[in-house]
Amino acid sequence: MRIYDIILKKRNGLELSKEEIDFFVKGYTDGSIADYQASALIMASFINGLNNRETVDLTMSMAKSGDEIDLSCFGDLTVDKHSTGGVGDKTTLIVAPIVASLGCKVAKMSGRGLGHTGGTVDKLESIPEYKTSLDADDFMSQVDKIGVSVIGQTGNLAPADKKIYALRDVTATVDNISLITSSIMSKKIAAGSKNILLDVKVGSGAFMKTIEDAEVLANKMVEIGNSCGRKTAAVITNMDIPLGSAVGNVLEVAEAVEVLSGKTKNDLYLVCVELATVMVSLVKGIDKSNAKDLVEKAISSGAALDKMKEWILYQGGEKGFIDNIQNNIKAKNVIPLYSESEGYIAKMNTEQIGMVSLMLGAGRIKKDDSIDHNAGIIINKKTGDFVKKGDLLCTFFSNKNDETNCNAIKEYISALSFSNQQPQKLPIIYKTIF
Amino acid sequence: MRIYDIILKKRNGLELSKEEIDFFVKGYTDGSIADYQASALIMASFINGLNNRETVDLTMSMAKSGDEIDLSCFGDLTVDKHSTGGVGDKTTLIVAPIVASLGCKVAKMSGRGLGHTGGTVDKLESIPEYKTSLDADDFMSQVDKIGVSVIGQTGNLAPADKKIYALRDVTATVDNISLITSSIMSKKIAAGSKNILLDVKVGSGAFMKTIEDAEVLANKMVEIGNSCGRKTAAVITNMDIPLGSAVGNVLEVAEAVEVLSGKTKNDLYLVCVELATVMVSLVKGIDKSNAKDLVEKAISSGAALDKMKEWILYQGGEKGFIDNIQNNIKAKNVIPLYSESEGYIAKMNTEQIGMVSLMLGAGRIKKDDSIDHNAGIIINKKTGDFVKKGDLLCTFFSNKNDETNCNAIKEYISALSFSNQQPQKLPIIYKTIF
Repeated sequence: MRIYDIILKKRNGLELSKEEIDFFVKGYTDGSIADYQASALIMASFINGLNNRETVDLTMSMAKSGDEIDLSCFGDLTVDKHSTGGVGDKTTLIVAPIVASLGCKVAKMSGRGLGHTGGTVDKLESIPEYKTSLDADDFMSQVDKIGVSVIGQTGNLAPADKKIYALRDVTATVDNISLITSSIMSKKIAAGSKNILLDVKVGSGAFMKTIEDAEVLANKMVEIGNSCGRKTAAVITNMDIPLGSAVGNVLEVAEAVEVLSGKTKNDLYLVCVELATVMVSLVKGIDKSNAKDLVEKAISSGAALDKMKEWILYQGGEKGFIDNIQNNIKAKNVIPLYSESEGYIAKMNTEQIGMVSLMLGAGRIKKDDSIDHNAGIIINKKTGDFVKKGDLLCTFFSNKNDETNCNAIKEYISALSFSNQQPQKLPIIYKTIF
Repeated sequence: MRIYDIILKKRNGLELSKEEIDFFVKGYTDGSIADYQASALIMASFINGLNNRETVDLTMSMAKSGDEIDLSCFGDLTVDKHSTGGVGDKTTLIVAPIVASLGCKVAKMSGRGLGHTGGTVDKLESIPEYKTSLDADDFMSQVDKIGVSVIGQTGNLAPADKKIYALRDVTATVDNISLITSSIMSKKIAAGSKNILLDVKVGSGAFMKTIEDAEVLANKMVEIGNSCGRKTAAVITNMDIPLGSAVGNVLEVAEAVEVLSGKTKNDLYLVCVELATVMVSLVKGIDKSNAKDLVEKAISSGAALDKMKEWILYQGGEKGFIDNIQNNIKAKNVIPLYSESEGYIAKMNTEQIGMVSLMLGAGRIKKDDSIDHNAGIIINKKTGDFVKKGDLLCTFFSNKNDETNCNAIKEYISALSFSNQQPQKLPIIYKTIF
């Protein structure tokens, strides 16, 4: 078999066999196929397309290209969740303990934030002593005993995807549904859970800007995931506004505690209930209404919050930190931002708000940047709210100097559009594909 | 300007500007653009196409990427010829002295053979002492004095094309009309002649296998050449059979002498008259029938053969070698091959016959292989001829051992298809685009 012939075939719009896809993935991962041949094949695949069979084979081939986490000892109880990334997305912190309290097994690896989106591992690291790195035995034993562990990426999961993604990133071949699907699903499959829920974000703060695009991606991922032997579902959720009110690491942990305590039933609560419901449905094979009852009871009974505390403590997090979290936010500057405009907030540029949080120190531009776990924003007014002059728009938590804070304020203001007319209310959950 | 955005634009099927094409050609030549980005852009250009404006800009950009031969001192008299490559194609040896004897200026760089096709420089090197390498002053002075000089590739002509072609060769992006055109024409334009004739070969021994494809390529090259400011024409000629009867270096020089002496009016003679006629038409701006008269007279009067002898001698070739060339073919083994079949030759796989010549030592597989200038084949029976058992099919000239010669014989026989029915006679010249 020769890579030349494989490139030629895809260039001519023909379907590649499983053997040809395996040959490419293996050869590119081990370095026997050159970057320039891989990029030619990827461009041809981008333009001429990969059908579902090819996408499944590419996904499985990349999933098998490195370490694969073996969670078979937990039978069909394991469930993973993947978010396509957004601003203020702290859902993992909430849904993981909910579903674990209901008997699901959450053995989860999460990522770090980059650019305007945050990462679950960063949020967890705002809890003193929390260990985001566990050895395999401790990880498995924790999942076995308490049903949930969330750690950082470990081992060498789907190295083929890593290498191919890096190449796509510099050759303008990222935004193709089949390639995005195979990239996401290969990592999820290597991570070992039997059930996978995808939270596909759509809107100004998300990778997917339109509902149509999000729906195509969600359907494709569900189809490919099921074809790869995992029970897969997707929820398409709104990212035209930040999710909940907190953006920034410890602030988001505090909001997660708030939601789990049942004290707030905001948009974040609704999204988390939907995500947890679908996860429980997948694992238990029960219908959504029954699953939803279980989820709501897990919150109202306090079982989910107890599970969160158990999990954080078990994984090394400082005792009492969660119970007293509102007093544990340590920013030198707490800056209330009052409105100088009056009217309805018609739009929030959510990516821009993510960037404001980054300016305050809560995120990173480059992979190796350090972050300030206490920095961030608490948002008081969101799209659709009527604002009078002098109303509190938001509060910044910052350890930066005045100049940076001032620039962040200007940036935040420019992310808001005001209108005299009440804007149309967009749904929080667009669609569940199950 | 960023190469990423240029790739993205072509990936989306948009037209690239002159500035974007220049940016790519310059950046890839100087190494600031990576191979993997170049190959992604080339694949996108292959699949989504380059329009004529883009092809002209790519051609000119590559032509200007290195040295450019300045032939302006010869005004509009300079004429170059390019063949897309075939078997037994010794037309340069014949048309160069014809048109030079009629006042055209042939300042020509030719290539070496590779694979089943021969190269003019190899053929010329079968003449002892002939210098295929001249310094610039000697080259120009020779063209000025006698009207013709043919040397090997020199200087750094169109290095961008060289680098891009090498990449296309390993990424399955060779056979695209716009890319082929820009590759050929960039070198011809850098080589400096005001008039350019393209000999587009079609058939089993050529790169182009169908007349339709050849016509598309010929039209495109003429269009792009004219748009680049060169008077350009093309002749589409038959390469379903070897051209003339000789294949192999000194054998082909001998056949060229034969044609120039007016002793033979075979297919080779007809093709050469057509090529020379169009070249003279281009240079002198006269119509084809007048030009043809001049060309035929140059042969029948002996002026063209005299010009050949003058040229070879001027460029260092051994005195008297050409006059006595039939006695200067030095092969240990001269092997006549008699037919064991009876019937019409219905087809000759001409690429395969080129490979037989290569097996006998006349060609090279890799660029650095040495060749045997005396090896080759004289063909007696060609497509359409009726052959009786015992008729001489061809004669091998070889310095190889018996085993190689036997294998070559088997290969030659398998390249012929016999039939009881006389095959349809194909034209020698399909079309002239002028």
